[in-house]
Amino acid sequence: MTSAAAQRIPFDLADPYRSLSLNTATTKMWTLAEAVDGAARAGLGAIGLWRDRVDEIGVATAAKIVADAGLRVSSLCRGGFLTEPGDGQAALDDNRRAIDDAATLATPELVMVVGGMPDQGLVAARERVHERLALLVPYAAERGVRLALEPLHPMFCADRAVISTLAQALSMAQPYPAETVGVVVDTFHIWWDPALEEQIAQAGASGRISSYQVCDWLNPMTADPLLSRGMMGDGVIDFATIGQWVRAAGYRGDVEVEIFNAAIWAGDGREVIETMKQRYRDLVLPSLVD
Amino acid sequence: MTSAAAQRIPFDLADPYRSLSLNTATTKMWTLAEAVDGAARAGLGAIGLWRDRVDEIGVATAAKIVADAGLRVSSLCRGGFLTEPGDGQAALDDNRRAIDDAATLATPELVMVVGGMPDQGLVAARERVHERLALLVPYAAERGVRLALEPLHPMFCADRAVISTLAQALSMAQPYPAETVGVVVDTFHIWWDPALEEQIAQAGASGRISSYQVCDWLNPMTADPLLSRGMMGDGVIDFATIGQWVRAAGYRGDVEVEIFNAAIWAGDGREVIETMKQRYRDLVLPSLVD
Repeated sequence: MTSAAAQRIPFDLADPYRSLSLNTATTKMWTLAEAVDGAARAGLGAIGLWRDRVDEIGVATAAKIVADAGLRVSSLCRGGFLTEPGDGQAALDDNRRAIDDAATLATPELVMVVGGMPDQGLVAARERVHERLALLVPYAAERGVRLALEPLHPMFCADRAVISTLAQALSMAQPYPAETVGVVVDTFHIWWDPALEEQIAQAGASGRISSYQVCDWLNPMTADPLLSRGMMGDGVIDFATIGQWVRAAGYRGDVEVEIFNAAIWAGDGREVIETMKQRYRDLVLPSLVD
Repeated sequence: MTSAAAQRIPFDLADPYRSLSLNTATTKMWTLAEAVDGAARAGLGAIGLWRDRVDEIGVATAAKIVADAGLRVSSLCRGGFLTEPGDGQAALDDNRRAIDDAATLATPELVMVVGGMPDQGLVAARERVHERLALLVPYAAERGVRLALEPLHPMFCADRAVISTLAQALSMAQPYPAETVGVVVDTFHIWWDPALEEQIAQAGASGRISSYQVCDWLNPMTADPLLSRGMMGDGVIDFATIGQWVRAAGYRGDVEVEIFNAAIWAGDGREVIETMKQRYRDLVLPSLVD
């Protein structure tokens, strides 16, 4: 079992990629083994895993592949989808499996996409997240896994996540210990938030930043909003400014690149990683270094 | 010149449509004269005007057509687009014309869509809005026109409006008198906001609700996010709950229906208005009545 604190490493311009993590959604066509190989050959320090690629080969095999390559697992994506009416047992069971998998993969961070609206009852959907999170916290705590609540862009409130801002995620996390419930800072989802600086500061001060994820917001958007993410530098996000806020908040963890983008998925994975490294070094890393 | 206070009328289930306003964007294919005729024949109390339809015939003619039909102009849309670098003179001049037009049309509310990001400098773009709003306030105050700041959905932050929440709009309005700078409560743009109830209450307590605009959020979204608005009841928005908050905030003005939707635009305008009336009476009005 790895604790969150154990993974914190300083950012270093002389060794720029040890804090960089490839999320497997960025190289979506690759199997887990291919993504691990690609990340390790490129000199990255970590990898972020989606459960679909883990489930293909089984979690024990996945854990061994990652460990043999000498990579950290920066996060497992995803638990959540807690908003359906009824007793929620199927969702709770699935989340317990995800917590187990995170523990096996030695990642302290399970990203939680909490679910959208089954009907027009937004307030009720949020209430179900509150209630079911409470049921999952003891299970996660026993296994040393942190539930990392991810605010998604408000355009996904109806279909994916009724948590839309960092302030809301922090409020939902607040009753629980910081080592058991954290929040994800994903630039694509929250760059527009007028309260972002103060919310990142609060997330840092309370020790709850589970993950810093970077990708850009394309303008104009693509027809499918889910795929409107871009490589850093291809859109409108000011990574220098947000990075300063993240540094000031004390974050010293891995930086994950998770890009859903049809053109990037169609490209060669190795070239995607090289571009990602260059953009990370030029646009993201400088403002994170002390 | 009409004052904001003069337009406030109580909601009444026995006379349901006198507080209902057709925004000309909903029947986009109609000229101003056709929209006024359609609204008046349908027994609506008001109309919300876009400047393109006003400019086609000139503001004096537009004002006469509306007055002759016995309608109120609930708002003029739109001023704004204040975020370009440089001296901003062209935008300021255009906004002064829009203020003049609002005064001529006897509407107290000029809807302000403040503009998107000309580059990656979000903080700087917001600062330009601050600075230029200050230059417009005296001009608007002299003419009895209120600048109604409209928070747009965060998915439009890059290309249309760097004001994304009601809290942010209220903060920007705060230095000025409530009769000169207000805010727009448009369900499509802000329904997802976890702080919505408290922000609507604050907007009401400070006397700054310039307009309550209703349309639905379609799920799934359409390919063009701008056209992803739906008729009330066709999407996920809980108009009963938001309406209660708006009523509790003391709002007693017109309710504008502004729907950008290709299928609605392709339909017969008279049928669109009939559907709009029915949905308004069933879904929106009941929670607004004292």
